[in-house]
Amino acid sequence: MTLTMKLTKRSVNQAKWYTDVVLGAKLADYSPVRGCIVFRPYGYAIWEKIQQVLGAEIKASGAQSVYFPLLIPYSFIAQEQKHLEGFAPEMAIVTHTGKKELEEKLVIRPTSETIINKKFTDWVQSYRDLPLKVNQWCNIVRWEKRTVPFLRTLEFLWQEGHTIHATRQEAETEVYRALDMYYQFATNTLAMHVTKGLKTEKEKFAGAEYTTTIEGLMADGKALQCGTSHMLGQNFAKAFDTKFVDENNTEQYVWQTSWGLSTRVIGGIILMHGDDNGLILPPNIAPIQIQIVPIFKGDKSEVAAFVNSVETALKSTNITYETDWSDNSPGWKFADGELRGIPIRLEIGPKEAEEQTVTAVARNTHAKTTIALSEIETKVPALLSQIQTNLLAASKDFTEKNTHIAENYDDFLELTKNSIGYIKAFFDGNADTERKIQEETKYTTRCIPLDTEKETGKCFISGKEGRVTLFAKAY
Amino acid sequence: MTLTMKLTKRSVNQAKWYTDVVLGAKLADYSPVRGCIVFRPYGYAIWEKIQQVLGAEIKASGAQSVYFPLLIPYSFIAQEQKHLEGFAPEMAIVTHTGKKELEEKLVIRPTSETIINKKFTDWVQSYRDLPLKVNQWCNIVRWEKRTVPFLRTLEFLWQEGHTIHATRQEAETEVYRALDMYYQFATNTLAMHVTKGLKTEKEKFAGAEYTTTIEGLMADGKALQCGTSHMLGQNFAKAFDTKFVDENNTEQYVWQTSWGLSTRVIGGIILMHGDDNGLILPPNIAPIQIQIVPIFKGDKSEVAAFVNSVETALKSTNITYETDWSDNSPGWKFADGELRGIPIRLEIGPKEAEEQTVTAVARNTHAKTTIALSEIETKVPALLSQIQTNLLAASKDFTEKNTHIAENYDDFLELTKNSIGYIKAFFDGNADTERKIQEETKYTTRCIPLDTEKETGKCFISGKEGRVTLFAKAY
Repeated sequence: MTLTMKLTKRSVNQAKWYTDVVLGAKLADYSPVRGCIVFRPYGYAIWEKIQQVLGAEIKASGAQSVYFPLLIPYSFIAQEQKHLEGFAPEMAIVTHTGKKELEEKLVIRPTSETIINKKFTDWVQSYRDLPLKVNQWCNIVRWEKRTVPFLRTLEFLWQEGHTIHATRQEAETEVYRALDMYYQFATNTLAMHVTKGLKTEKEKFAGAEYTTTIEGLMADGKALQCGTSHMLGQNFAKAFDTKFVDENNTEQYVWQTSWGLSTRVIGGIILMHGDDNGLILPPNIAPIQIQIVPIFKGDKSEVAAFVNSVETALKSTNITYETDWSDNSPGWKFADGELRGIPIRLEIGPKEAEEQTVTAVARNTHAKTTIALSEIETKVPALLSQIQTNLLAASKDFTEKNTHIAENYDDFLELTKNSIGYIKAFFDGNADTERKIQEETKYTTRCIPLDTEKETGKCFISGKEGRVTLFAKAY
Repeated sequence: MTLTMKLTKRSVNQAKWYTDVVLGAKLADYSPVRGCIVFRPYGYAIWEKIQQVLGAEIKASGAQSVYFPLLIPYSFIAQEQKHLEGFAPEMAIVTHTGKKELEEKLVIRPTSETIINKKFTDWVQSYRDLPLKVNQWCNIVRWEKRTVPFLRTLEFLWQEGHTIHATRQEAETEVYRALDMYYQFATNTLAMHVTKGLKTEKEKFAGAEYTTTIEGLMADGKALQCGTSHMLGQNFAKAFDTKFVDENNTEQYVWQTSWGLSTRVIGGIILMHGDDNGLILPPNIAPIQIQIVPIFKGDKSEVAAFVNSVETALKSTNITYETDWSDNSPGWKFADGELRGIPIRLEIGPKEAEEQTVTAVARNTHAKTTIALSEIETKVPALLSQIQTNLLAASKDFTEKNTHIAENYDDFLELTKNSIGYIKAFFDGNADTERKIQEETKYTTRCIPLDTEKETGKCFISGKEGRVTLFAKAY
């Protein structure tokens, strides 16, 4: 492994820093197709860990793994009018095969509601078949104009859950169950403080009754939508005639939800936690939790023997580690481990070997701790857990400190100039106003937070009744 | 769960039986796009198990998980001439997005050598960077004319390994390592007896120096290619200028391999082991290994209590089971479990509850065994293991019994009429002859088996020097 570049400081140029980290830490690389990235082993390992942790939660919720075709007939997308309007501009369309022109154009899935609904219609007859909950991990293509690795790419990876229910209430319960699953995942695994909320009419999913979201505030003050859960009502059920016979022998349309989380959260991890030295990975998502750096001059046998004992102790705790025996200098290895965001570095030199201790350096604070060999099995997990907790606390603290209140549009404009982060205001949800605000300030509505969902007050623009709404610049 | 159809007997109509099993056991369903299937939970669970078992072997071999873009510029495919010739007719081509026509046509990956090579070129400088081994699990599109669920679909799922090496010898070692990995996987996990061999020039991968394969003989006498490992030599390295500086500071092209195994092996499992009653899943790949059928009239409390004890015993062994408490009759449940190929059925009625035993019925032989509750933790795993062994032995026996020898073309023609399975003959490898044989008999070369690779004899057609070659009808 070679450090292929000098890392731009985050404080100097965040956009350049971001790209430097993505490329330098070998998370991803550019590809020959505009806006598509290559997931390199280190980046893909983070996604595999996401699949493992979140995937277990999804299965525990009763959603079974399936796989639906990549290609969707154009006529399907067109069957739900709002859905078509929302996705038409972003579709990648297959018109030809090697031999001939296709009779019907096929769309590379921008999301799978339509094709899945078609099969739900075939599969469901009676209320006994409900609820039906499926999930797939797959690739998605949306032809967007501006792309940034992980955050917005033409092709991305995600999971999409699709569920149908006998009643509105059951579907709504599922919408909020999925949202809470994402919230817990972001909080406990990604150490990201996120806000649960409702999207405005303008920002909701094309074809949904309403959309719920978790939004996270990145360290530069921009917000990132990290996962969404949609109440589809009976919109797709009506478009695809997805019906069941209820307990009273009456035909009813099903009630439906869908929810997804994508590889863009990897961008969120980078943006939320990283610092001037590179990535900082929360221990619960880090593919490598410990970097061991042996330090020696000449004969390394004593250090090697002790490193071996340390490795044995780590193995017994299921902690993942990597020992760097390369010819690079210790300083180089430190920088490399920090760039890659490994949560703890264990420095082991002749002094440590003699004293049977390691010097543990936390990636986030650079705090040093001396840990005796006999205590590795307890103190290293405790330190990892502490780093995880600290990262989440820092994220929460940052969000709170950078949430400002606007009573009127003058306040709002002032805040867009002199602060970063969220602006909180009562807003009447008018889509035209939203567009106007976006044009003038680049701020968009992020969500109506659930914890103040019921509060109302005078809209900061119109004076009409409004709900507490978060605005921010967004990725 | 409802049995949606009456299963056609395999002995009566194999093609209809196959479709009935795929749909009836809910492995897959047709999709609205011609030639693409929907993987239902039961079918996808088999694929997940394949990913888990084979994936661990792939990682152990040092290949790291990556993900490359779905869309490949047309010019890339065109860069290796043979590769283009081989794949051009099967390509699905994206020409438009929702907004406009693309400047360069993009091909949905039919395989990823070209785009991966492009990045290998960027990533590799020195011999120290080699070997470089990557693997991805992804979807692939090849626009074929005739499709059959799992066996040949326009979109399929697979893993593709790609490795580059400093020397020809290292690459060749990797080709055979991957082949042997597939062989062990087919043998030990899928209980499929397969033959390791070389493809003829006509049948090799488009762009390879040579292709190795594992071929399995299905119960109807047709062969199925179950996994391939290719020696790419320096063909792609030269097309994409993938070079490294060796230990003597000389620039060299890398030596390359690729290897893949796809969802078509699920079709192989069905065809190799199934019988008139449906699927027979080898225990090592079965998502559900045990079906528990409680049998009771009226009060079920005693049976339920005992079923609970049996479940507790199974849990401690990590065996997967499913208990069917539905209102369907025991006979219906038996048929359902057999259709789905669950390796063992445990019948538990009042008599069993009283005697604290279960009646175990093996799916493959229908043999009944009485097992005491206290012995479940040892005897059930032993029975699963025995079923696994028996299925493999049956597959091997079938292959041997249905391998015939042809000394000349008259023999060969006679065998195509009066036998099923492999025909073994010395063959000179002439591609025109191969085409002629295929036209006349529908038989194609399957492989030159490795265990007799060095044997030569007079070609059964030309009389020239030939190698032992297996012919068969194939899927």
